[in-house]
Amino acid sequence: MTVGWKHPAPEGWVESVWAALAEDVGPGDLSSIAVNPEEVANWRVDAQADGVACGIGIAAYLLQPEFDDPQDDECEALVDDGEPVGPGTVVLRGRTRVGRLLTRERTALNYLMLLSGVATLTNRYVRKLEGLSTQVVDTRKTIPGMRALQKYAVRCGGGRNHRMGLYDGVMIKDNHIEAAGSLTEAVARAKHLVGHMTRIEVECETLDQVKEAIEAGADVVMLDNMDPFSMAEAVRNYRGHVVFEASGGVTLDTVRPIAETGVDVVSVGALTHSAPALPFHLELE
Amino acid sequence: MTVGWKHPAPEGWVESVWAALAEDVGPGDLSSIAVNPEEVANWRVDAQADGVACGIGIAAYLLQPEFDDPQDDECEALVDDGEPVGPGTVVLRGRTRVGRLLTRERTALNYLMLLSGVATLTNRYVRKLEGLSTQVVDTRKTIPGMRALQKYAVRCGGGRNHRMGLYDGVMIKDNHIEAAGSLTEAVARAKHLVGHMTRIEVECETLDQVKEAIEAGADVVMLDNMDPFSMAEAVRNYRGHVVFEASGGVTLDTVRPIAETGVDVVSVGALTHSAPALPFHLELE
Amino acid sequence: MTVGWKHPAPEGWVESVWAALAEDVGPGDLSSIAVNPEEVANWRVDAQADGVACGIGIAAYLLQPEFDDPQDDECEALVDDGEPVGPGTVVLRGRTRVGRLLTRERTALNYLMLLSGVATLTNRYVRKLEGLSTQVVDTRKTIPGMRALQKYAVRCGGGRNHRMGLYDGVMIKDNHIEAAGSLTEAVARAKHLVGHMTRIEVECETLDQVKEAIEAGADVVMLDNMDPFSMAEAVRNYRGHVVFEASGGVTLDTVRPIAETGVDVVSVGALTHSAPALPFHLELE
Amino acid sequence: MTVGWKHPAPEGWVESVWAALAEDVGPGDLSSIAVNPEEVANWRVDAQADGVACGIGIAAYLLQPEFDDPQDDECEALVDDGEPVGPGTVVLRGRTRVGRLLTRERTALNYLMLLSGVATLTNRYVRKLEGLSTQVVDTRKTIPGMRALQKYAVRCGGGRNHRMGLYDGVMIKDNHIEAAGSLTEAVARAKHLVGHMTRIEVECETLDQVKEAIEAGADVVMLDNMDPFSMAEAVRNYRGHVVFEASGGVTLDTVRPIAETGVDVVSVGALTHSAPALPFHLELE
Amino acid sequence: MTVGWKHPAPEGWVESVWAALAEDVGPGDLSSIAVNPEEVANWRVDAQADGVACGIGIAAYLLQPEFDDPQDDECEALVDDGEPVGPGTVVLRGRTRVGRLLTRERTALNYLMLLSGVATLTNRYVRKLEGLSTQVVDTRKTIPGMRALQKYAVRCGGGRNHRMGLYDGVMIKDNHIEAAGSLTEAVARAKHLVGHMTRIEVECETLDQVKEAIEAGADVVMLDNMDPFSMAEAVRNYRGHVVFEASGGVTLDTVRPIAETGVDVVSVGALTHSAPALPFHLELE
Amino acid sequence: MTVGWKHPAPEGWVESVWAALAEDVGPGDLSSIAVNPEEVANWRVDAQADGVACGIGIAAYLLQPEFDDPQDDECEALVDDGEPVGPGTVVLRGRTRVGRLLTRERTALNYLMLLSGVATLTNRYVRKLEGLSTQVVDTRKTIPGMRALQKYAVRCGGGRNHRMGLYDGVMIKDNHIEAAGSLTEAVARAKHLVGHMTRIEVECETLDQVKEAIEAGADVVMLDNMDPFSMAEAVRNYRGHVVFEASGGVTLDTVRPIAETGVDVVSVGALTHSAPALPFHLELE
Repeated sequence: MTVGWKHPAPEGWVESVWAALAEDVGPGDLSSIAVNPEEVANWRVDAQADGVACGIGIAAYLLQPEFDDPQDDECEALVDDGEPVGPGTVVLRGRTRVGRLLTRERTALNYLMLLSGVATLTNRYVRKLEGLSTQVVDTRKTIPGMRALQKYAVRCGGGRNHRMGLYDGVMIKDNHIEAAGSLTEAVARAKHLVGHMTRIEVECETLDQVKEAIEAGADVVMLDNMDPFSMAEAVRNYRGHVVFEASGGVTLDTVRPIAETGVDVVSVGALTHSAPALPFHLELE
Repeated sequence: MTVGWKHPAPEGWVESVWAALAEDVGPGDLSSIAVNPEEVANWRVDAQADGVACGIGIAAYLLQPEFDDPQDDECEALVDDGEPVGPGTVVLRGRTRVGRLLTRERTALNYLMLLSGVATLTNRYVRKLEGLSTQVVDTRKTIPGMRALQKYAVRCGGGRNHRMGLYDGVMIKDNHIEAAGSLTEAVARAKHLVGHMTRIEVECETLDQVKEAIEAGADVVMLDNMDPFSMAEAVRNYRGHVVFEASGGVTLDTVRPIAETGVDVVSVGALTHSAPALPFHLELE
Repeated sequence: MTVGWKHPAPEGWVESVWAALAEDVGPGDLSSIAVNPEEVANWRVDAQADGVACGIGIAAYLLQPEFDDPQDDECEALVDDGEPVGPGTVVLRGRTRVGRLLTRERTALNYLMLLSGVATLTNRYVRKLEGLSTQVVDTRKTIPGMRALQKYAVRCGGGRNHRMGLYDGVMIKDNHIEAAGSLTEAVARAKHLVGHMTRIEVECETLDQVKEAIEAGADVVMLDNMDPFSMAEAVRNYRGHVVFEASGGVTLDTVRPIAETGVDVVSVGALTHSAPALPFHLELE
Repeated sequence: MTVGWKHPAPEGWVESVWAALAEDVGPGDLSSIAVNPEEVANWRVDAQADGVACGIGIAAYLLQPEFDDPQDDECEALVDDGEPVGPGTVVLRGRTRVGRLLTRERTALNYLMLLSGVATLTNRYVRKLEGLSTQVVDTRKTIPGMRALQKYAVRCGGGRNHRMGLYDGVMIKDNHIEAAGSLTEAVARAKHLVGHMTRIEVECETLDQVKEAIEAGADVVMLDNMDPFSMAEAVRNYRGHVVFEASGGVTLDTVRPIAETGVDVVSVGALTHSAPALPFHLELE
Repeated sequence: MTVGWKHPAPEGWVESVWAALAEDVGPGDLSSIAVNPEEVANWRVDAQADGVACGIGIAAYLLQPEFDDPQDDECEALVDDGEPVGPGTVVLRGRTRVGRLLTRERTALNYLMLLSGVATLTNRYVRKLEGLSTQVVDTRKTIPGMRALQKYAVRCGGGRNHRMGLYDGVMIKDNHIEAAGSLTEAVARAKHLVGHMTRIEVECETLDQVKEAIEAGADVVMLDNMDPFSMAEAVRNYRGHVVFEASGGVTLDTVRPIAETGVDVVSVGALTHSAPALPFHLELE
Repeated sequence: MTVGWKHPAPEGWVESVWAALAEDVGPGDLSSIAVNPEEVANWRVDAQADGVACGIGIAAYLLQPEFDDPQDDECEALVDDGEPVGPGTVVLRGRTRVGRLLTRERTALNYLMLLSGVATLTNRYVRKLEGLSTQVVDTRKTIPGMRALQKYAVRCGGGRNHRMGLYDGVMIKDNHIEAAGSLTEAVARAKHLVGHMTRIEVECETLDQVKEAIEAGADVVMLDNMDPFSMAEAVRNYRGHVVFEASGGVTLDTVRPIAETGVDVVSVGALTHSAPALPFHLELE
């Protein structure tokens, strides 16, 4: 299996990596002229804080020696995506030409820092729910161009994915309802057209809406910014009929009480729009 | 001038926007089938927290009515990039077909949230240095694919840009020095090849290195993780000979004392790798 | 709303169209030199056989006059995607410069012929099931690069879409089961990782497998190449527990008896891999 | 030589293949999580009907083991493009990791089915003309994005290619003639500008037009929807002066009588717009 | 008709222009910050030497005012591609925002200078042959990425195009002959497979080869680096049987004597690999 | 280190090469059908004139044998970029399948001829300044799409690079000054916004402007089309304060007298817009 990855990896990551490298190198790495072109060195990448690793496969791809370099060169992943790291954990180690290594260092670290940041924050939420069956899921509030990789990082952190985009699930929100005329009409239109592999979710703000959504045939009901008491009541009334998702105002402090209302899923936008980077460092040995 | 932008805007943002929209919509927005296709509505986007706006031009581009829609449709930017916003500030307002609007809403908000987050965090650093001539600059620790837009956001927040990538400035780091044999040799090689528009910066960890860098002909000296007393001494000894950049361990708490050592520039990686998103919201009226 | 389209249209069709035009025109339309460059003419596109139109929006996009052409030029769609046509039905009519028109004619017609072919064949299957609640769905047996547009055409023909690709639904086939060790284990692994918006389908060849799939928690069961009696029995035993899809050996002759077993969905690969083109013609008037 | 291909293969097929794979896999193959990631298996692809193989090289490229997989893995083509197959003919055989194999299976089969379908239908037309010197050629009525590969498949089926697009041959049609003022004027304009490697064909509907075209200097004359008697007369009158192409109303039933009029070439749009897929199947062994 | 172009223009030029602009502007035009953003000015582009204009349409596209700029802005082409210019000839004139104009000036001028250079050199060769029927054609010795535009420029200069690439004509060279075993065998193989719209040219170095090529059925014979006497003899012997192309050692001094041998076509690599730029200048008025 | 290249090479050259190959091969190399598909041959590329080699790495990449060809195949660079060549110098030698070789020959040679032409002309200018410290630099007058590779060729010829584009240096020209109101105002605006790694150059036509530029804080002053006496005076007055660049009217005859005025840099547009190709040839052995 490809080094460092945890499945299913998103198709297209290689193109993302080359575009990112081109963005940094552009018409040429001017600083590489200061380097002895023959020099080969041992190097390692280590984590500088506690968290969950993600992006190991990308970093390994970027930092591996050239195809036709001498055979004693190498690049080894010591940690796979989804595994815990702490300050000083060596995640990758290798031996390659210094010029090539320094040109690619920053791009490799930028992926590691971003994706491990997402996996780490996800994991903090997941660990808050230990012992409960409620799952932590992401949202579509992702960084443009990074949707698939950030959602992969959420999976590496122990979370699960909400729909990937507008194409793999129906989500009927307040604005859709307003434009359709009613919640029931909006669901009816969706059911009339989507296929048998597509779930229909409805965003509800009141218990009346929950009732209407379920009667209209929704598969999933989002309890949007509801208070815990109402959430609990919704779950109590309709357990087993639909999947319940809680959304809005979820923080590391509130996630457990929200989950304890019995909802199946809690969605957290911050996982992908506000996760701080997890620091990593490359050093020559 | 193009709506909402502050110059110089990065070429290529339009391609980024279409790729992000395609990432979200994919083979089709399934939820749009719930919407009345004839419905046209007034809408507005407002900020939900204090900060500095950025991404207004992108959002306006995405949310504008179709080319051949009736002429009473419109999209107006009430705030330009770089301007302050607070909870409730309306930044964009328009009137367009609901189906189109809802399909594009999330992509527009994702740009706004990311870029305004960067501009806002930058601005917090910049305001800490009020009254000083020291500038806040970014680094190459950016999100893959977002380099140019994030650096634009830094400018909108009142910061300035370090080099864009490996191609528009020389930065000689410890690993380059090690691979060249010595700091002096590394600088000499760079000076031998780069053109007259390129500045050479050297990363120094000791006052001896600072001396060596300046004698070798560096244009800029980075004081890397130095204590304030050493920084102040470096500045005192060589003021006017080179530009001094402080780097490492810079937080909102430490940025002012660091700047007060007299350095010209303080670089902050967190501006582009760990800025929390600034929340925005779209509502039908 | 954009001319001729029926929602939700797949994002990215414009890029497909430009690539197809470039494929035909390449370094230049040599025959256009035979044309009087000033000539403007009225034209129409008409169908040459009975069927369901699809691709009208694409053809309108290609054949519309240039942006800055005189205002009396025009391009009008007389039929929308999904509407019936017959020999002589005029689907588009316009007035534009002849050179431009002839350069784009073939590409426009190629889309119309392909997509209307798919919509037409789909519609023939759909009409066979009149009075039944069973739906006709497509498969992943599509023409490379045409997945989203062909699936759009299926919708225009009255069919529904199976999953778009490997990413928006789980389908556990014989080979997955073999590689997982057992059907139950395969389903368990999938349930352990996918999110709450994703349905899990299992391909079953025997009634025992149907039982195992349902007990393992499958959402959808595919009855693969089963005889009608077994299908009917599976439906009778587990109606309401899962969605049943019939697959294999479906033709215009067999689709109704298969549907009458009570399955919810019948999938037909031929819709997208073997639909003959529906002929269209462009004429100057 | 590259496995499975028959020359000259179209440049750019690799990009087509990756785009098709990305279209199917998108943000990740969800079903692959049900598979044991260590499992390696023997597999084979076999044909399920009589026809001519095409797309073997593409399938081999997709299904080959990863670069760094153990050396006992392999992928072997047992049939080359252009060779006959029947139900049960094994065309490819290999040994690779199951996860990778199942992710790529559908894309590989989709190419095989489409291209073998084209080669097979072409071959049926070609075999109808056994003993005659008349050639079967394709048209520009191809599937958008598939022009070069479909025309390659026509060659594999024993047919020859008409021009690839608007750029590698002049074809003056009724609309060009109308816009130029006359057939003679249209040909004169073309001859005045095209280079010495470009042939000029004129579409003629009457014997008078044939005469005018030949006198104007056409290299090729298309007899468009003419009756066999007129075709024969045209050939009789001008044999050796130009190449004659018959077009319009060509079916498997009519192709031989049309060819027997003595025309050099018969063009058949159905080869590329309406060829049914030739079925193939992948199985683990 | 699109401003400034002469038909047939190569599809894809718009993409080339945007890529070239992005290459120059990159992450932002830093100098534009020195400009008053409100400033609008009149400007003109004029030639600075004698020659033939080419690239007017591209320059007009780049320098035109923004879509939504005030209506008194404009961009007018005073000269079309293929027309003569001299020092001071104003080829374009407009009125637009200065910031936009200066950002795009260099890219527009670079196209004008390159393409007009090619058209101008071509025209110098063409004028040397005044009174003769021999045509000047280009070769495949073009600048990577500029094939179609440079060949368009050759047409604008009065030359004609040899084949566009390896795909629209057969050219059998010495190396092909060597690899096929014999000239006759090489031609036979080609004739066995190519379609009726494709011409076959053979590169010959001796009169014996010319004889062999013609007997084998070549359509075009290239007299490669032959002396004028042999060329004249070849033409005398086989006039009317094939098209004769002279190639090798063609300069402005030798082109006329070579043409006077009676060859139909003279090919000149320098047209596209060594044409000096024709200077143009943009000025604010 | 990658074969044949001299550092720093521009990222993205591989994409440029594939696009150029596709431009030539298109839907297929028709002439390759004349070649014996089994034939393998020894070949060499040699220079046909005196100059400086550039593009060796690209040619080696294109002409290398296929990955899985027999191991006795090979491709060897005998000369690296930047080294001198003369008529008959063998720069590359290899052994590969003839079909593949001939398909790629022209593309490889086109890069070699273009880039070696630039390196050669640059080197002629550089050699004119032997003994002086003045450097020869390029401009932004490059061929669209070839900026980075042409600037790499300038470095290989011994020249240095001016800014790469509008993004890595400020250049205030007459039009900027006019639009800003004054030279001083233009520089002030630039200094107010650009970062510490960016140099500011001002184009001056008079000694008064030189004085104003230096007082405004310019880093570099371009002496635009000044006479040598004024240049010398400018240098005398402000030596050490700024870098002086001479521009305009620079030829191989004038470059030395201009340099002797003491300017630091002379810029020459012809290096990249009018360098004649250096001829190379591929031969089977």
